[in-house]
Amino acid sequence: MEQLKVLFHVSDNELWRKALANIENFLNDVGERGEVEIVANAAAVSAYYSTGEKKELIDEMVRLSQMGVHFTACKNAIKAHNLELSLLPSFVEVVPAGITEIVKKQGEGYAYIKP
Amino acid sequence: MEQLKVLFHVSDNELWRKALANIENFLNDVGERGEVEIVANAAAVSAYYSTGEKKELIDEMVRLSQMGVHFTACKNAIKAHNLELSLLPSFVEVVPAGITEIVKKQGEGYAYIKP
Amino acid sequence: MEQLKVLFHVSDNELWRKALANIENFLNDVGERGEVEIVANAAAVSAYYSTGEKKELIDEMVRLSQMGVHFTACKNAIKAHNLELSLLPSFVEVVPAGITEIVKKQGEGYAYIKP
Repeated sequence: MEQLKVLFHVSDNELWRKALANIENFLNDVGERGEVEIVANAAAVSAYYSTGEKKELIDEMVRLSQMGVHFTACKNAIKAHNLELSLLPSFVEVVPAGITEIVKKQGEGYAYIKP
Repeated sequence: MEQLKVLFHVSDNELWRKALANIENFLNDVGERGEVEIVANAAAVSAYYSTGEKKELIDEMVRLSQMGVHFTACKNAIKAHNLELSLLPSFVEVVPAGITEIVKKQGEGYAYIKP
Repeated sequence: MEQLKVLFHVSDNELWRKALANIENFLNDVGERGEVEIVANAAAVSAYYSTGEKKELIDEMVRLSQMGVHFTACKNAIKAHNLELSLLPSFVEVVPAGITEIVKKQGEGYAYIKP
C-alpha cells in the first residue's frame, strides 16, 4: 500500500493549531500509511519554546511526535529570533535552512501543505 | 495537448474571493486544458452555507462549477464547525479528510496553490 | 549535482519581506544549485512599484535579481490594480496569468512555497 507523504510548512505562530488539527485528522483517516513532517521557519519556531498556558501546544506536539510525526526547525529562524538552540525540546530536529528542507522533501515526493 | 491540473486549498474564508478570481483568470488563460479542484477545510467550509448578501459568493461558485471546477469540503471541518451535511449545496462533494484529498491530488500530478 | 528549483508565490504585500529573507537564506545554504522564481499576483504586484521609504524592498529585489532570482508579475493583477505595465521595473517579467505560471513550473519540477 502506497505511503502518503506530506510536509506541513508553518511560518506563523497562528498556523500551529490549524496544522496540528490537520495532522490529527489526516492520521485518523489514513493510519500508518501517513508520513508527516513539519518544517517550522520564520516566527513559527518560537512556538517550540512555549511555556505556561501555551504549554498545551507543546503537549500536543509531543503526542504527535510519539505517533511518528517529524518536527523540524529552521536554524536561521532560531538565530534570527534570538532563541537558544540548546533549549529546543529534543523531539525537534534542527535543519540548516527550512526552505532547503521543504524543497528537498517535495523532490522526494512529499505533498506540500500550507495550513 | 497536456492538461494543466491544479488544486486550490482554501482554509480561511478571507481567501475565497482571491481563490475564485485566480480560477477565473486561469480558465480564461488556458481554456479547456485547465482542470481545477478546490478543497475547502477548516473554517472555510462555512462559505458553502452563505446566505443573504454573501450569496453572491455561492453564485460565483455555481458558475465556476458549471464550467467544470470541482468543489469539495472536508467532512471533519463541517462537523467541527457544527454545520449540517444535509444542507450543503449539491455542487459540493464531501471528502472524508481535506488533507488526505490534497495529498492524493498532488500525487496525481495536480499543482498546489494556496491563494 | 542536482539543481534545487523552487517557486515562491507572493499574493500579499505582507509576505514580501518573509519571501526575500527565505530566498536569501536558501541561496546562502545551497549556492549555485539554487534556482528561484517568484510569481507575484493579486495585491502583491503593487510592491514592484514601491517608492520612498519602501524603496529598500526594491533594492533587495534588484540585488537578488542580480544573483539570478527570476521575478515575475501577473498581468491580470497589474490590470486589476490599475497599475501601469510601462512603469514596471525591467528586472520583472510579466506573465499573462500568475496561476498558469505556477502550475507550469510545478509541472517542471519546481517545489512550491507560500512564504
